[in-house]
Order: sequence, then C-alpha cells, then structure tokens
Amino acid sequence: MILNSTYRFEIKSTDMAGRIGRLETKTSKIETPALLPVIHPVRQLIPCFEIRQMGYEAVMTNAYTTFRRQRDRADEGIHRIIGFDGTVMTDSGGYQVLEFGSVNVDPLEISAFEEKIGSDIAIILDRPTGLEVTRSYASRTVSQTLDSARKTLEARTRDDVIWTLPVQGGKYLDLVAKSARASAKLDFGCFALGSPVEVMESYDFPLLVRMILASKRHLPIDRPFHLFGAGHPLIIPLAVALGCDMFDSASYVLYAKNDRYISSGGTIRLEKLEYLPCGCKTCASLKAKELKALPHEERVVALARHNLAALMLAIEETKQAIWEERLWEYVRGKCSNHPSAFEAFRIAVTSNMLEIEMGTPGFKDRGIFLFDDLDLSRPEVARHQERLSNLDLSRKEFLVICPETRTKPFLSSEILREVLKLVDVEKTLVCYSSRVFGLVPAEVSDVFPVSQITHHLESLSRSDPILNAKSWRRINVLFRRNDPAVEPLKKDLQNYSTGKNSKTAITVSKNYKSFKRQLEITYR
Amino acid sequence: MILNSTYRFEIKSTDMAGRIGRLETKTSKIETPALLPVIHPVRQLIPCFEIRQMGYEAVMTNAYTTFRRQRDRADEGIHRIIGFDGTVMTDSGGYQVLEFGSVNVDPLEISAFEEKIGSDIAIILDRPTGLEVTRSYASRTVSQTLDSARKTLEARTRDDVIWTLPVQGGKYLDLVAKSARASAKLDFGCFALGSPVEVMESYDFPLLVRMILASKRHLPIDRPFHLFGAGHPLIIPLAVALGCDMFDSASYVLYAKNDRYISSGGTIRLEKLEYLPCGCKTCASLKAKELKALPHEERVVALARHNLAALMLAIEETKQAIWEERLWEYVRGKCSNHPSAFEAFRIAVTSNMLEIEMGTPGFKDRGIFLFDDLDLSRPEVARHQERLSNLDLSRKEFLVICPETRTKPFLSSEILREVLKLVDVEKTLVCYSSRVFGLVPAEVSDVFPVSQITHHLESLSRSDPILNAKSWRRINVLFRRNDPAVEPLKKDLQNYSTGKNSKTAITVSKNYKSFKRQLEITYR
Repeated sequence: MILNSTYRFEIKSTDMAGRIGRLETKTSKIETPALLPVIHPVRQLIPCFEIRQMGYEAVMTNAYTTFRRQRDRADEGIHRIIGFDGTVMTDSGGYQVLEFGSVNVDPLEISAFEEKIGSDIAIILDRPTGLEVTRSYASRTVSQTLDSARKTLEARTRDDVIWTLPVQGGKYLDLVAKSARASAKLDFGCFALGSPVEVMESYDFPLLVRMILASKRHLPIDRPFHLFGAGHPLIIPLAVALGCDMFDSASYVLYAKNDRYISSGGTIRLEKLEYLPCGCKTCASLKAKELKALPHEERVVALARHNLAALMLAIEETKQAIWEERLWEYVRGKCSNHPSAFEAFRIAVTSNMLEIEMGTPGFKDRGIFLFDDLDLSRPEVARHQERLSNLDLSRKEFLVICPETRTKPFLSSEILREVLKLVDVEKTLVCYSSRVFGLVPAEVSDVFPVSQITHHLESLSRSDPILNAKSWRRINVLFRRNDPAVEPLKKDLQNYSTGKNSKTAITVSKNYKSFKRQLEITYR
Repeated sequence: MILNSTYRFEIKSTDMAGRIGRLETKTSKIETPALLPVIHPVRQLIPCFEIRQMGYEAVMTNAYTTFRRQRDRADEGIHRIIGFDGTVMTDSGGYQVLEFGSVNVDPLEISAFEEKIGSDIAIILDRPTGLEVTRSYASRTVSQTLDSARKTLEARTRDDVIWTLPVQGGKYLDLVAKSARASAKLDFGCFALGSPVEVMESYDFPLLVRMILASKRHLPIDRPFHLFGAGHPLIIPLAVALGCDMFDSASYVLYAKNDRYISSGGTIRLEKLEYLPCGCKTCASLKAKELKALPHEERVVALARHNLAALMLAIEETKQAIWEERLWEYVRGKCSNHPSAFEAFRIAVTSNMLEIEMGTPGFKDRGIFLFDDLDLSRPEVARHQERLSNLDLSRKEFLVICPETRTKPFLSSEILREVLKLVDVEKTLVCYSSRVFGLVPAEVSDVFPVSQITHHLESLSRSDPILNAKSWRRINVLFRRNDPAVEPLKKDLQNYSTGKNSKTAITVSKNYKSFKRQLEITYR
C-alpha cells in the first residue's frame, strides 16, 4: 500500500492558529504560508523564471488544461513544460467543473496524468459545491468528491506526490463539517477548502471564516491546509491566522487585466491611481501617469508584475507578524480596511477555535495591546482568567486591595513590600485593582500579559472573580484619587456586600496613612 | 517692507483636514504632504543625490551647524554645500537650544546667515518649550519665540525666503493657542508646531493631537503647517489628516543606527527581523539574514536606505488615500497599530475641528464604511443629520414608515412607488427605517452617504429626530420580519406615544397587504 510517507511538513513557529512551516516536496522545500501564483501551462503572462526570481517557491498550474493541450509533452514533466524548477502544484479540472458544469475526463485518468507529469502536489478531480446551490446538490458534491478521493488513493502508483483533497459543502456548514470528518480519515498529504472563490468575490468574508472553521476543526493539524483562489491581500492575513498554509491565485493577472492595482488595503482602480504607493521594481521605475499611459498589453504586464510583488509583500508581512508574535494586532489592522473583513475577524476570534489558543505563545517578548472588548477574547487574556480560577484561596480569609502601581510588576512595588510587613501573609490575599483585569493578586501580577499591556479601554462591566470567589472575613481597600479602577470596584464591592456576604467587614481608606492604620488594626 | 510675496501655496485636493498641495519655493515646486529627510551639512550617511533619486523633493538641514562649521563656504550657498538641487529648509539651532540649553548665536545673526546661504524655507531661531517644564517657563518660551519672530521679520533683506515660525507652549494647550493666535498676526510663510519630538518619543500621541488642534485652530489655513521630527509611519497619516503639510525627520538615520527597521505598522528591531516585509531596492537585493550579517557601517547604511524608502511609501500611501477620498479609513487603519495612536485618532475625529468638516468632499465616488460608533463622527454622517434638520415638515401630518429596501436608493424602489400612489403626498412624509440612520425620508435617501454605506453596526440607541420632530396625526408602519431596524424603532415608537403624542394614531402592519389596506383607510 502506498502512503504519503516521503512527505514532511514541519512547523517552525506559530501565533494564533497561524504557522510558519516547511513543506518538503519531491522537488524542493517550500516555506508556508505560501502563495502559489496560478500559471497557465501554455500562455504565461509573466514567465515562470521571473516569478521564481521574485521569491515564489511554488506555483499552481492546471493538469486538466495540460492534459487537453499538451498531452504529447507529458513525458517531459510539468516542470519542463511550464519552465519552473520549484514546487509545482496541479489542479485537476475541478474549477472547470464549477465553471462549465462538467469536464470530459475521468478522475482516475486525470490523477494518473498528474502522477505522470510529476506534479509535486496534486489535487484530485473534485466536485466543487459552489455557492448558490441547494442543500441536496451540495450534499451530492460532498459524496462525489469523497468517492473520487477514495478511488484516487487506491489507484496511486507513486509515493512522492502530495495528494490534496478539497473539503466540500459550500455554505452548508454541517455538510462542510461532515465532509471534513470523512476527509480526515483518508490518507491525504494536504487538505483544502473547496469553492471559496465565489464567497470571496462577493466579499462574504464572514461566511468564508465560518467555512474555514467548520473544516479545520475536523482535519489533522499536522497536514497543510490550502485555500483556493485567495489572492486578496485583505483576507490572506486572516486566513493565515486561522491556519491556512497555502493559497493559489490568478488574481495578479485577473486584476491586472481589469486595470486593478493591489495595495496594502485592497485594490485600487488604475484610473484612481495618482501615486504608486509601493516600492517594488515596477513602481520604482515609473510614475502613476506613465503606468496609465502604457499600451494595454504592456500595462497589463506591468500591473501583473506589481501585483505579484504586492502579494509577496502581504505574505512576507504576515510571516514576519507570526515571527514577532503580533499576528493578532496585524490581522486586526488589516481587517480594519473593510467592515466585512472586520466582521469576519470578530467571528474568527470569538469562535473558541482550539488552534488559536494552542498556537498563541504562552510568553511573548513584547506586551500586548488591547483596543476594545474584542481584544479581551485574546488567548493571553483568557489564560490570565484561567490562572485566577486556579489560585488556591481556601486558606485566605483577608483581602487587601491596593491601587495599581506605576512600578511593574506589582510584585516588585514599594507598597506591596510595605503591606506584606503588616499582614498575615498565610491568611491574606493582596491584590491590586486594575481597570481592565479587575483584582490582580500579587502572585500572578508578574505574569504575561498583565504586566505588559497598553490600552485605553474603558473599565469593563464585570463581576470580579477574585472578590466574589468567597466570603472574605475582612476587606481592606486603598483608593487612589482619579484612579479609573475605583468606580467599577466600588460597584463590585456594593453588590458583594448586599448579598450573602453582608458580614464581611469592608474598610476603605483614601490615603496610605489611614490604610496602614486599618491594616494594623486588622492584624493586631 | 518685505513680504512673503513670491511664495505660493496651492491646494489641489483635500480629504478630512488633509490636503495635497503644491508649494513653490525659489528653487523648486514641492508637493505636500512632504517629508524632508534631515541631512547633516557635513557628514551625510546617504548622499543627497541618492535621496533626490528616491523621490524626495526637499530636505532639511541645520543652518546653525553650517554656521559653526562651514561659515567660510557660506557664499557657495547651502544647495552646493550639501549637494542638493531641490528645496532646502534650514533649522536654526532651536533644537540645539532644547538639547543643550542655549546656543552661542543671536537670532538675527542666524537669520541673516540663513538668508545668505540661500535657504528656501528658513526657520527662525526659536525657543522650544520642551515637554517637562513648568508653566511659567513654557510661557517665557512663547514670548521669547514671538520676540525673536518679530525681530527676524524686521531684519529680513530678501523676499524669496519662506520664513517659518514655530508655535510654542508645549503641553500647556492654552499657551499653544495663545502662541498660535499671536503668530497668525505675523507675516510668516509657514507655521510649525514646536517641540513635539519628546511627545512623540514617549508615544503620547493624544497630547500631540491636542497640540496640533490647539495651534491649527488659530493659524491661517492658506499657509503650510510643519510638524517637527515626525518620522514615524504610525503618526504621519493622522498628522496629515489634521492638516500637517510638512515633516522633517532624522528618524531614518537614528533608527538605522539603533538597528531598527521601519515597517508599515511601526518599527521592528533588527534581531526580530526574519523576513524583509518590503519591496524596496535594498530589501529586494538581500535577505533578512544577510542584512543582519552585514558589518555595522554597511548595515546602518542599508537600514537607512530602506527606512527612507519606507517613509516615502508612507507619504505616497497617504497622498493616494487623500486622492481617493478614503483618508478616514486609511488613518483609522494605521492608528489601529497602537492603542495610543488609536486614542489620538478618537480625539482627533471627535474634536469638531472645522477643517475636517471643510476638507471632506461633499460627494464621494465610493461609499463609506462604518465600523463602529466612532465612525458616526464622520462629516458625511453629520451632514446627513443636518440635512434632516433642514427638512421643512411644517405641512406634513402623516408619517409612513417602510422597511429598508434592497433597491438603493429608496427613492427608486418599487414599494415607494406603490406607497406614493396611496398617500396624500403634500401632507405625508414617507421614510424607510435604517438600522444606522433611523428614519430616512425618501427626499434624502439618494444623497451620499445614506445610499452608499457598508457596515456591521449594531443599531444605535437614539431618539429618532424625524419621529420626534412633531406631533404626527397618524403613523403607518410596515415591519419586515427579521429586520434589525425593527427593535430600535419599536422602542422609539413606544417612547414617542407615551408622552405628549398620545393622540397620534399608530398602525403597525406586518405584511404589505394589511399595510396597503391601512394606508387606504388613512387616506380614504
């Protein structure tokens, strides 16, 4: 039996569910996340060697078109046919099924052809669901694709091809999940999300995210995940953050033919281009006016070259953000370019996706930024809350609440040192009161991210978990004037004392002198 | 009497308070917003001709340093001394006053020298306030600067130098305003904001915005406004949106010496750089590893070259955003990289700055995006509200509320056409109910931006201005199922009918048939 044994996918670095990986194919090692420009097997607008020079390690081409038009050259191999010495991924005609309803070839015929031409990463002939279809049609595409997948696996004759299985189901998320669960049981080297192109074309990024989540959840995380047709710089960072490792796209050509210029915030129509906000070779060599004045064919080539450079930049920026462990901030910023992308971001980060939690490093070199309540969904914040709930408070009877100190962490502050001299440490929990985190016990105050945070958040409405953890015997509080943490704490204390904790003695001091005296009285 | 008569500043395009302008100096025409790299008159890390090749039309150099070290070459002129054939702006030693407490030169001596060396844009010898100073010290720097300004004006001998006056006052905003008011009365060709460098270094962008607002408010808008030392890509877009036209910065060198790499979202420490997320000549020619491995001097030069390219990109992107009339979205996105910058954005856009309102085009080609309540501060939205308050409702007695239509604008919808057949048009106001804008009368429904908006906003809590404009005789409402505008409207209607309007007959229909019947009854 042939297994995908020669293939290796190694993950080097993660943030959120995004990862920098290295995929070994029979031809080369490629770094992921990777964008694979789509190359026409015969007519190339930008020659493959130039695409290679721009830093692209892999391309996608169409085995079905090659089969129909270059079958006699099959023995030369796909690398020679297209003139690319890096990794070549081949599509199988599934997209043509979506476009034209059917293709004139059998799944096994095309998969045998993909093996023959030496494709490094080969897609089975799937049955794409598409977007505007009925549920029963969608369901059929799922079974047909899985059927084709099983047949292809059985018929394999080489073990050095990474076979890729697209997950179908379209907008029917339960079908996507079902498709993913069944796919996960098959020996594929790579999985993909089927038919997202129309979803992206209609800017329905929330649906795209739901489709990614529904499929990723059930797929093995040690295999790369490919997103078809994602050539828009707006959505690549978010897709990466959700664990998409590979993208293919013809957008660099399609946009170019449409006189659209890819920029960091989206695409710009050429007529609207007064400046060239890009430092690439093409843009450095001419002005916007000159670009507009080029004859059509030259202009399309120039735009396609620029678009390829802009997409490469989007990938490099995203990888750098993973490397720096600031992917959350980066993706959030990118998604801020379009409400639909931002809504997609919101859905993604509140989805409780396990890989987001797993991929986020436990300690980061740099502090994190909190912009609004949405950022409280960050795994770093959730971990703080978990640490709180894991504290053993069973022997604590006294709660002492200090104001937040300028000295970070609180653990090394002057006031804590003073307080610890006055209290019975065994029986007392000493906290500071933070506007964002509520009560933060000294024990966890030096732990990332509480000690390294920048924000302008309003105080949050909450029922403080530490305060409400038990019936305290006594609570000593020091309020500092103009401390924004005071008002929410006051409310919390009020709610606390009106309930079952009416016997707790609460002493509030407004200056350190009286605070100190109160502590002396408490622990006399 | 010598006036700044030969100088011309022409504004070509605006969005928010940002503007693309053309400033004519005696040497060349420069386009604003412009960043002027700071050049050492003697030791240049990147030679001036190269800076020119990168597209920089103007540079800033120090007349005081030139005075002290190159006085004998004064007759050659500053352009020849530094080897730059574009516009040269000269600082006068004010920064040295800030750094070293004082300079060994008289204001008139240095201004005469600036005239002699042929500076195109010359800064008077000011007395920078600095940041951590007392109010009385700050006040003295304001009067000393104004004093020096008046003396310089009187002593002028050339009329082809654009004299620049820095507004002082530091963090004391009333002093800044006072300084600006007094400065506005003087015949200067350019104004500047004094001492923002320390403010920016401490990332106190909110204070920076307050200082800009306090000074811009009182200065003539037909003169360029210069912001000292703003060489951070994070803050340039916001500063431009507030009407800053010129920036100077040595950051490209300072960051380079500090092994810091300017990126679109901030700076990255070289050691953290695994990729080069940039398409500039330098970054295209080597990999991150190779950059890190360069010998110190070469590395600093390479980083400085990249930094210059990155800053140029920030300026070009900002200009393109003004040109496309999407500066709000662009600045918002950029400020989303740091909570302090975002807070500064919030302060800026809620400041009621007149120029933001004036500079925002009344009609835009493309729709606008609303992300959250902050975006409701957009001038486009404020104008819609103003249009509502200008409607003459005196003869209207009946209010008809339809659901929002898919057809945009509402004015051309099927349902409106039907409704208009049934109602007494003279006495009836027909609206649709929008989740974001509340009731939108058909009359204004085709006006930008109501007809062109993309958002995922929750409905806003509000007391609807149209509903509450008067005591309606009758209100006919058609609710559509699952319309998110229904709940807030229901609440509004309830509040409306419990008060002084209890006599208004309100009829709510849940399908078109009964809605139609109700209208027939009303206008029988």
